[in-house]
Amino acid sequence: MPRHTIEFWFDFSSPYAYFAAQDIDDIGSRADADVAWRPFLLGAAFQVTGVGSLSKTPIRGDYARHDWARLSRQRGIPFRLPANHPYQALAVSRAYYWLEGRDPAAAKGFARAAFRAHFVDNVSLIDPDTVANLAARYGGPRMAALAAIDDPEIKATFKARTQEALSKGVFGSPFFIADGEPFWGQDRMAMMIDWLQGGGW
Amino acid sequence: MPRHTIEFWFDFSSPYAYFAAQDIDDIGSRADADVAWRPFLLGAAFQVTGVGSLSKTPIRGDYARHDWARLSRQRGIPFRLPANHPYQALAVSRAYYWLEGRDPAAAKGFARAAFRAHFVDNVSLIDPDTVANLAARYGGPRMAALAAIDDPEIKATFKARTQEALSKGVFGSPFFIADGEPFWGQDRMAMMIDWLQGGGW
Repeated sequence: MPRHTIEFWFDFSSPYAYFAAQDIDDIGSRADADVAWRPFLLGAAFQVTGVGSLSKTPIRGDYARHDWARLSRQRGIPFRLPANHPYQALAVSRAYYWLEGRDPAAAKGFARAAFRAHFVDNVSLIDPDTVANLAARYGGPRMAALAAIDDPEIKATFKARTQEALSKGVFGSPFFIADGEPFWGQDRMAMMIDWLQGGGW
Repeated sequence: MPRHTIEFWFDFSSPYAYFAAQDIDDIGSRADADVAWRPFLLGAAFQVTGVGSLSKTPIRGDYARHDWARLSRQRGIPFRLPANHPYQALAVSRAYYWLEGRDPAAAKGFARAAFRAHFVDNVSLIDPDTVANLAARYGGPRMAALAAIDDPEIKATFKARTQEALSKGVFGSPFFIADGEPFWGQDRMAMMIDWLQGGGW
């Protein structure tokens, strides 16, 4: 059993979450931490904080687009902002939790593939059919995946996870909770590593 | 002449700017960059972006207060949030630009002392008398400092700097512009150093 736990809260439509997803499992391995991927609906947090989508906010949106492009160049991680950014990541989040109930490792593989499909190949993940096809590559039979995306129980699971995020003070994406300590943003991962390694502050 | 330039945009009432102010001149020295300290009125940017003061935003405010306290512990930098946080930093910003016109190095010394007075000793910097007393320790005669804080020309200078900030896309505090490249936030200073050292991305 790993000595530490990291909850990796994110919205599938968040570019900063896409960048964080490239590193989070390596960070977990090096820090002897179990990493739980936890998609949630960022829009629900926006309703509480009154802060809107970054990319739709004047000035901040321009900065963010510039920042994503240079992060991609700096880190050597492919990235193209999709035309339909941002989108409501309902189908893909529900499919994630359905897969997680069957096989947590496969669910992570699916999440990585979904990020890549969206932010590299610019595949829209709004359509349940597209998401079900992707899920089928990670052991979730296509028709069962389609049914799961519309299943009241799976919908309730995703809603409960989003409520859990809010109750834990999660207000952005990505947001990490490492052994109970909150860290907001892809640019705070180094601080989280220091914390897990016993910074003790 | 240094090979690079860093514009350090900040609001005197911003805790993250206080933390950034501890390092920015060392970073400038190591990167062979001239650092221009540029106070501006963050509230003016909030009016454009529609985003409000961090510490008054639900959930985000709690996170920020927690984050400032742990940054202080992690970095060994004394910090106590003043009771009147956040405040409108008019008097101190005007005094800064007045001093800068006389002696840029003394103005930086004044800015550092103002940050320390506010975030370590919890001195309120709203009152022009308090600010003038502080300015007097950096070569600006007390009565002249008091007059400057109310001088239409100095007021216009501060307004023009705030407009300059907005026109350059500055929307938060601290915000750095290094050789024309924008970096938002105290936690992006490492990325700025990489950029100045020729990251080339």
